[in-house]
Amino acid sequence: MLVKSQVKYIQSLSQKKLREEEGVFVAEGPKIINELLAASNIDIRQLYATEYWLGAHQALHASLDPAIVTIVDSKELERISFLTTPNEVLGIFNKPAFNSPVKAKDCISVLLDTIQDPGNLGTILRCADWFGITQVICSEECSDLFSAKVVQSSMGSISRVQVLYTEPDAFLKKNNDVPVYAALLDGTNLYDHPKIKEGIIIVGNESKGIRPSLIGKGTHKLTIPRKGNAESLNAAVATGIILSHLT
Amino acid sequence: MLVKSQVKYIQSLSQKKLREEEGVFVAEGPKIINELLAASNIDIRQLYATEYWLGAHQALHASLDPAIVTIVDSKELERISFLTTPNEVLGIFNKPAFNSPVKAKDCISVLLDTIQDPGNLGTILRCADWFGITQVICSEECSDLFSAKVVQSSMGSISRVQVLYTEPDAFLKKNNDVPVYAALLDGTNLYDHPKIKEGIIIVGNESKGIRPSLIGKGTHKLTIPRKGNAESLNAAVATGIILSHLT
Repeated sequence: MLVKSQVKYIQSLSQKKLREEEGVFVAEGPKIINELLAASNIDIRQLYATEYWLGAHQALHASLDPAIVTIVDSKELERISFLTTPNEVLGIFNKPAFNSPVKAKDCISVLLDTIQDPGNLGTILRCADWFGITQVICSEECSDLFSAKVVQSSMGSISRVQVLYTEPDAFLKKNNDVPVYAALLDGTNLYDHPKIKEGIIIVGNESKGIRPSLIGKGTHKLTIPRKGNAESLNAAVATGIILSHLT
Repeated sequence: MLVKSQVKYIQSLSQKKLREEEGVFVAEGPKIINELLAASNIDIRQLYATEYWLGAHQALHASLDPAIVTIVDSKELERISFLTTPNEVLGIFNKPAFNSPVKAKDCISVLLDTIQDPGNLGTILRCADWFGITQVICSEECSDLFSAKVVQSSMGSISRVQVLYTEPDAFLKKNNDVPVYAALLDGTNLYDHPKIKEGIIIVGNESKGIRPSLIGKGTHKLTIPRKGNAESLNAAVATGIILSHLT
């Protein structure tokens, strides 16, 4: 059974400040919860699950410390869920731990300049994960990685893709021996570019694109050729197309 | 000034049934509103705009019938807006009119099987529009084209991409002389496939994929090769990558 202080605590985690103080984030639904419970670099702090979910995951349930599991009914789940349609199980997890710092040499990374839509950020992480990219650098203006919407749309990739929030100009200055690919509307044709093994791919804000100082640091300016009439592509779709072609 | 009956009417348009009875939809924000006002196949019924927007669009304002324009302040805009952050202007438009019926021969179309997330549907339309695809076929289970979220995420492409809701098995049966490309997790490598000039590209539901009866009708089964660990790609990102490669 759920007690009032638990409801209050979970609701408080909608605030970035409290998530940071606690070092935790919330995830929901069987698919993501199962992935996160299986991840070696993320620890579970509290699990709130329906009888139905627990019945369907008996081995998993048995492997968990009983003190961190609370059985909830669907009404109780509604009270703590951040989803429009609550989905069987909610977990509070410690933020993922990664062994080595983010680097730029000898790998491909994605640098996001002010991606503000949380759904886009999560989808970009999932997409990076699909193409084997293990690092994403976010400008400080990007949406918070551990907000409910980012976690949900990343579909578990949050445990595999390391994200560094930093000042992007300084990051590029420090890594000025690595090629920098800027995704723009007026660059050269993406499809004329060969595959790469090393480089930082910059993707810009949903409406303003990449800030001028970062465009200036691009060693290659790439464009996805337009054949129709839309003014632009969604940032996550554009990232997917670029990664699909360059990796 | 806004009157109570207007607020009630606009709010009622959050319901699909009422939008259908009226033959209208709501769009918001300067970018989309400007695109829709410029579209030759969509008529404006009512416009609710702040002084600021009207001042910045004097020629456009002068071209509109004064009877359909209501000046609102930011508090009033909040009362009628479907957005978390209301954005200067809201319009009620007649649904777009298209000259010719949807066809499958001699063109590329996208068939969506049960795309339920409205953000995904809108993003797919925008993406189709970018790649010059002018037709999208939706199974009846897809999200409603004229819901606020689909309209907003399509970013104006709703005026250029013709959408037909129909029973997809029957549609494919009727058009059985056209190649059918099914996007699957276990097909052949997308990158080994040449560009196409004609065909129906099927994209499936966010969690269940394409229904078996439609997979059976696929003449080509295509997969975006996975290099990392994500279980799947977002449906809109996958559509973007496939269109980018095949068109």
